[in-house]
Amino acid sequence: MTPTAALDTLLTALRDGLGARHVLTDPDALAPYLTESRRLFTGSALAVLRPGSTEEVAFAVRACTQADIAVVPLGGNTGLTGAGVPQGGVVLSLERMTRLRAVDPVDATITVEAGMILQDVQDAAEAAGMMFPLSYASRGSARIGGGVSTNAGGIAVLAYGNARDLVLGLEVVLADGRVWNGLKSLRKDNAGYDLKQLFIGSEGTLGIVTAAVLKLFPRPRSTSVAFVGLVSARAALDLFVFLRARMDRDLTAFEYLPPFALEIVLRHIPGTVQPLHGAHGAYALIEVASARPDADTQAELESALGQALADGVIADATIGTSGAQNAALWRLREGVPEAQTREGASIKHDVSVPLSRLPAFLEQAGAACTAEMPGLRPCGFGHFGDGNIHFNLSQPSGMAAAEFLAEWGRFNRIVHDIVHDLGGSIAAEHGVGLIKREELARYGDPVGLDLMRRLKAALDPEDLLNPGKVIIRDDRDASTAR
Amino acid sequence: MTPTAALDTLLTALRDGLGARHVLTDPDALAPYLTESRRLFTGSALAVLRPGSTEEVAFAVRACTQADIAVVPLGGNTGLTGAGVPQGGVVLSLERMTRLRAVDPVDATITVEAGMILQDVQDAAEAAGMMFPLSYASRGSARIGGGVSTNAGGIAVLAYGNARDLVLGLEVVLADGRVWNGLKSLRKDNAGYDLKQLFIGSEGTLGIVTAAVLKLFPRPRSTSVAFVGLVSARAALDLFVFLRARMDRDLTAFEYLPPFALEIVLRHIPGTVQPLHGAHGAYALIEVASARPDADTQAELESALGQALADGVIADATIGTSGAQNAALWRLREGVPEAQTREGASIKHDVSVPLSRLPAFLEQAGAACTAEMPGLRPCGFGHFGDGNIHFNLSQPSGMAAAEFLAEWGRFNRIVHDIVHDLGGSIAAEHGVGLIKREELARYGDPVGLDLMRRLKAALDPEDLLNPGKVIIRDDRDASTAR
Repeated sequence: MTPTAALDTLLTALRDGLGARHVLTDPDALAPYLTESRRLFTGSALAVLRPGSTEEVAFAVRACTQADIAVVPLGGNTGLTGAGVPQGGVVLSLERMTRLRAVDPVDATITVEAGMILQDVQDAAEAAGMMFPLSYASRGSARIGGGVSTNAGGIAVLAYGNARDLVLGLEVVLADGRVWNGLKSLRKDNAGYDLKQLFIGSEGTLGIVTAAVLKLFPRPRSTSVAFVGLVSARAALDLFVFLRARMDRDLTAFEYLPPFALEIVLRHIPGTVQPLHGAHGAYALIEVASARPDADTQAELESALGQALADGVIADATIGTSGAQNAALWRLREGVPEAQTREGASIKHDVSVPLSRLPAFLEQAGAACTAEMPGLRPCGFGHFGDGNIHFNLSQPSGMAAAEFLAEWGRFNRIVHDIVHDLGGSIAAEHGVGLIKREELARYGDPVGLDLMRRLKAALDPEDLLNPGKVIIRDDRDASTAR
Repeated sequence: MTPTAALDTLLTALRDGLGARHVLTDPDALAPYLTESRRLFTGSALAVLRPGSTEEVAFAVRACTQADIAVVPLGGNTGLTGAGVPQGGVVLSLERMTRLRAVDPVDATITVEAGMILQDVQDAAEAAGMMFPLSYASRGSARIGGGVSTNAGGIAVLAYGNARDLVLGLEVVLADGRVWNGLKSLRKDNAGYDLKQLFIGSEGTLGIVTAAVLKLFPRPRSTSVAFVGLVSARAALDLFVFLRARMDRDLTAFEYLPPFALEIVLRHIPGTVQPLHGAHGAYALIEVASARPDADTQAELESALGQALADGVIADATIGTSGAQNAALWRLREGVPEAQTREGASIKHDVSVPLSRLPAFLEQAGAACTAEMPGLRPCGFGHFGDGNIHFNLSQPSGMAAAEFLAEWGRFNRIVHDIVHDLGGSIAAEHGVGLIKREELARYGDPVGLDLMRRLKAALDPEDLLNPGKVIIRDDRDASTAR
């Protein structure tokens, strides 16, 4: 059979199995599936498949991989690394698998299909009187399967962990089309290797997550938010260590903003207002929450920040006294990415370092980047309490965007070298995908990279599940990988 | 070379590399390494190796595996599954690798070698003003590498998770003697597959853990303990759900005892006294703790249990008012295993089910076992809040121990069938080792078992790391595995 005839045979089989309207081949229909949200990557695909059930996913994977056609799973297409961008093969969209399979407030679990929108998972948990803490800016369109497959982080990691920590069980379609049913609801299970860990965070390269059992938590009865001005990132670290010891597990967020981030939010995001008197060298947003009926998180925050003020750890603070005020303070933090977009082009880094090295990282990376390009405006903000900084660089005012973005690789090198020297990670919460696979090959421990390749070969020997993402299979070493 | 000559050559090389006194071959010296704590298994080994560093572990593994000699890693020999019992090959004891490599109260991490005693890890954390929560009865002799390798549970899982949840980074010697350095101290790291997950809980079959970076937490400033009498296990579940919502993350333990467990503790454990007035159908030990300076956990418990009493959820309760009283209440729970030993022979099960099914499990398993052998005394106790029950069966009074223990397999079948039907795990916190490998082959999902075998083949192709533990390599199916 010619390749064209073989493809026709495959597409016919897929149309028979999935229904013709769930096998897209029209270029206009394909287009939205080929480009990711930041438009850094555009791919190509033979077709987009939209299976409606686990059995249909298994059928489609079996049909494609038997025909030697790669399968690229896609959730809400909100990823920031190109992990869902196809480079040939077919896109397998989970968008129709949106069923809530079960919610159990006694077990404190929810069982959802991979295509369920994150916000819908949160809402279903709330309707059952519980809370699902995983949350990030794209929650209105991100699908839970993508969050699990990338081990997503977000704004509630400090108290509740990353996506990995929220998964009790998984259902996964393997490269050969078999279904692994690991949909357990257990808090303890050591019956053999913990297979779900393989699929969480491996970005669809080892299997396709079709459903998950997730942990739920009591809904907070009391939540308070503060916005704090500090002298420096060093002072922010002192404050974090102080609050962690004092608030214990009630501390649910500790986010960081440099002065530039607050400045552009106030400039570009409608309705935002200066929260403090005067300017400071650094800012932190702090959230404290508890489900205890006797918890008075506002009093806790007032007392703790009063002490921090008296000790000279902070310079100024404001505490929200209503849900609306808390939301307004959060908007100062959540508005940063959009404000940065409006301020011009940016080169982005999603990195982490050990907590104690956060001030050194911000200082060294900021100095190195501005030395490299005067006028460039570093904006390292984000999940300070997790050691995770979005170290984004705003272009110098007036420079052409394209000219600035052409320097992406050069600044990656500068920033990632510093991260690496400080014992950090070049991929903290967004993953590797396409955008960092060469960086991973460069900075990854060689023994670790070899283990990753062995895992890939063991679970997907023909390299047909999301090929070319995360790891480079062909043993090119770092020096030639770029 | 004859096998004997080859072994002599290997032993000579090992003596050269490790020092002669760290290569034990004398039968008397070997004996303590060949039998596990419950004396259910006794193994055999050519030698015991006691390397003093990661490099020496790597050297020893390389030397042995190149000579086609299996390597069985061993920590404190406190395991309950025979995972550390050799069946030929050499024992590689981590007992000399006891170094505290680093402790960092800002990062809230401790970096320890695998042979460090668990109690010493806890003490080192405390000396740094922090707390390491992993804890279980054998903490005075268990070594941390064993806890990590078996994903140990214990008494603090409810608030802090299993060993897996406490590990940030690992150093591992692989089957080919290479060292994987994954000693990161990061709270977020998605730079490729999360390799450490492979080695946590795989019982030394995929690699030998030589060091770990572990999470530390603020030390509780206020801790309170209550002992509660209830009508039934069903009422215990109602109480747990009530307290989880009300105490939120302050609830650090919820342990369960049936009347028989309390009865034998009071009979056999010196110094224990009846904590409540009258007898009840079930008992729970509850611990609430917080580092918040304003936390009054005793008042929290009093208020919550007062409500539970008014609502008829509990029948009686006592709350410790001092550290000594709290310790006395804990002794009622921690004394159960020893009391059971003194009460005669027991057949044990370490199982978990979804929380909502705990009452059904206790009821069904108890009824099935007593129907099978009248006079037998079921003792299902333990980590109720984790869904984890140690479902132990005390022999009928007066029966010969050996006669009772001969029925181990028959009762396993009865109990594990019920666990399996309820969506539970036959190996909750102790692991699989030798004692449950046939049970895993029987109850495990066939696709999952195949994945485990693929992982084993990918990481240890010659089957030389702790062979014969956890998974049965030779593809026997469940029907022939027993």
